[in-house]
Amino acid sequence: MRCDRLWRDARLATMAGNGLGIVEDGVVAASGGRILYAGSAADAPAFDPERAETLDGRWITPGLIDCHTHLVHGGDRAHEFELRLAGASYEEIARAGGGIVSTMRATRNADEARLVELALLRLDALIAEGATTVEVKSGYGLTVADELKMLRAARRLGEARPVGIRTTLLGAHALPPEYAGDADGYVELVCREMIPAAAREGLADAVDAFCEGIGFTPAQTQRVFDAARAAGLAVKLHAEQLSNLHGAQLAAEAGALSADHLEYLDADGIAAMARAGTVATLLPGAYYFVRETKLPPVDGLRAAGVPIAIATDCNPGTSPLTSLLLTMNMGATLFRLTVDECLAGVTRNAAHALGLQAEIGTLEPGKSCDLAIWDIERPAELVYRIGFNPLHTRIWKGL
Amino acid sequence: MRCDRLWRDARLATMAGNGLGIVEDGVVAASGGRILYAGSAADAPAFDPERAETLDGRWITPGLIDCHTHLVHGGDRAHEFELRLAGASYEEIARAGGGIVSTMRATRNADEARLVELALLRLDALIAEGATTVEVKSGYGLTVADELKMLRAARRLGEARPVGIRTTLLGAHALPPEYAGDADGYVELVCREMIPAAAREGLADAVDAFCEGIGFTPAQTQRVFDAARAAGLAVKLHAEQLSNLHGAQLAAEAGALSADHLEYLDADGIAAMARAGTVATLLPGAYYFVRETKLPPVDGLRAAGVPIAIATDCNPGTSPLTSLLLTMNMGATLFRLTVDECLAGVTRNAAHALGLQAEIGTLEPGKSCDLAIWDIERPAELVYRIGFNPLHTRIWKGL
Ligand SMILES: [Zn+2]
Ligand SMILES: [Zn+2]
Repeated sequence: MRCDRLWRDARLATMAGNGLGIVEDGVVAASGGRILYAGSAADAPAFDPERAETLDGRWITPGLIDCHTHLVHGGDRAHEFELRLAGASYEEIARAGGGIVSTMRATRNADEARLVELALLRLDALIAEGATTVEVKSGYGLTVADELKMLRAARRLGEARPVGIRTTLLGAHALPPEYAGDADGYVELVCREMIPAAAREGLADAVDAFCEGIGFTPAQTQRVFDAARAAGLAVKLHAEQLSNLHGAQLAAEAGALSADHLEYLDADGIAAMARAGTVATLLPGAYYFVRETKLPPVDGLRAAGVPIAIATDCNPGTSPLTSLLLTMNMGATLFRLTVDECLAGVTRNAAHALGLQAEIGTLEPGKSCDLAIWDIERPAELVYRIGFNPLHTRIWKGL
Repeated sequence: MRCDRLWRDARLATMAGNGLGIVEDGVVAASGGRILYAGSAADAPAFDPERAETLDGRWITPGLIDCHTHLVHGGDRAHEFELRLAGASYEEIARAGGGIVSTMRATRNADEARLVELALLRLDALIAEGATTVEVKSGYGLTVADELKMLRAARRLGEARPVGIRTTLLGAHALPPEYAGDADGYVELVCREMIPAAAREGLADAVDAFCEGIGFTPAQTQRVFDAARAAGLAVKLHAEQLSNLHGAQLAAEAGALSADHLEYLDADGIAAMARAGTVATLLPGAYYFVRETKLPPVDGLRAAGVPIAIATDCNPGTSPLTSLLLTMNMGATLFRLTVDECLAGVTRNAAHALGLQAEIGTLEPGKSCDLAIWDIERPAELVYRIGFNPLHTRIWKGL
């Protein structure tokens, strides 16, 4: 059988089904950028490839997927971090220009090209570890023009690098100073102008919000979901990070792709997510960086069969993390996720969290040929090591 | 003034003195592999360099120093990690061949060349982030021949790569199965044969031991220290990691270069270390990986003026960490070390922990020209980011 590319003498973690889908003596064949075959050499048809590689027993996994990032933003918060460690109070940090408002200002002050330039540094770190699909949220512009600018910058990342980019409009991330005391007015702007404009220009694949005491109320979140639905866009939610406002339940009832963070998720929320098939995206980097002590209810999610994804949450304030390998290690070390769960969390379930489960996330015929090829002896090494990158090759769409 | 190399238009964190030693418009000049000048451009003599580089405002720090590693070892413990996450008991893990004995077996079974090959992967990860000096301990051979083999492998790392290697004999790391029930007999072997042989062959720069309930008693540790002194070797100690056996005090009284781990260190131990000038080497990677909750007494060490170093403790069982940048982030995030303390911990104080404070660790005339040049806007970025490597160039001995 003709094919474009063939990788042989490989071990596969196909991630198909529920576990790792291990194939000890495996081959992967690709044609037109899609997987033609991924499975045991013994069962494979006789391929006639344009180009073949022998992997000497290296492991192939699906290309990694980072399903929750704030990769596009201006500035950083290194100085704020430094001040905080030196004992500065919140007031002193605010006076020194810290907090999310500082990121908003830096993002508003940067033009699209500058935002792309800055985000590429972070994207390249993800790609160097085998990431082939990355979700990118807006949420630091907080005006119609600046949110659309962020989304355009995110789309351009996908032109600048061989990687799949999914964009999410997070207009309801924080209240901009211009709307101080008028959160409903800002939500009105998000629903009436931002979401329709992003949809019209094809700039957003989904809509997200921050449902929290310091963010937006469940009622405001519901309005954002309604506007997203009217615009034909999928929804996601930052929920139960600092308290339990039952946002995950709200998200599940709106058919959300995922609810994210979830440290304070309760049993009702878990049940609602299980019923709706909403993915739980856990963000161990933020848990680590803000020194959270409340663990997300991993046992409950497991017992209910809620798919668990994990992601970097890469953002300047609470998770300046640009490594999915470390995200897996933190998922295991801090949240006691198993090796299988960590790997599913950055492949199969991360695809699900983006609504792309038919397209990416496992090594199965018909899916995009997105591969990460590793110099390891067993998949557990990808989770176990800290600060070590054993990537051998990365393939996106068969190339 | 003639010089071999000149770096100009740089910002410096010389790490000389107590803080970061920041120079905004700086130059570094080197001759014969040593620093000739490191300071402000305004005060610099007129140099006539063989080769000059303009750094466009990039930052230069001293090359990083990892002052506590177990880089040389056979095997890994990824499978044990996987089993533990999946809920296996200690008995099941032991039956599956886990624990330190598995590393001992793999190390004994590997020849010197294989140990070098494996360690180079880890060393290269450290070097890629700007490490210019790395300490390497033995301690998984636990016979005279296998401990010397480990030290020879460590020395060969320094021939294979442009990096300074310091070797430490850690014969008293664990009791090998052959000596079960006879720890004193094993310590006798360490003192009568291992230490003298390592000294005779010039294979060890220092001697270390593991003073702990599951390691060796203070009395046994004292015998190791006495043997080291007789052989003319400096000492260090793994102390107060899991309990307080007053090992740090013992080490300080023996004039140890450093006492390492120190989660259970008490006020008497701090006072003894301060009197002796013994460095406190904290190992946040091990704290993180084993999910320790007892924090080392950072405030007490600070108040007493004990120099604090931080290191990867790279080892397969409790800290499979190969990143000094992450070590700094963990030092700040988990131990609340300041940015200045983190940077001093992998430069000036790490040099001190190796007895090399006259030679490396700061940008000062006469010291080895070991530099890390970074694409950053402020030193805090080196501590703040997680899983991101902004190294631009690394210079060892002026090259
Ligand atoms: Zn987020
Ligand atoms: Zn150690």
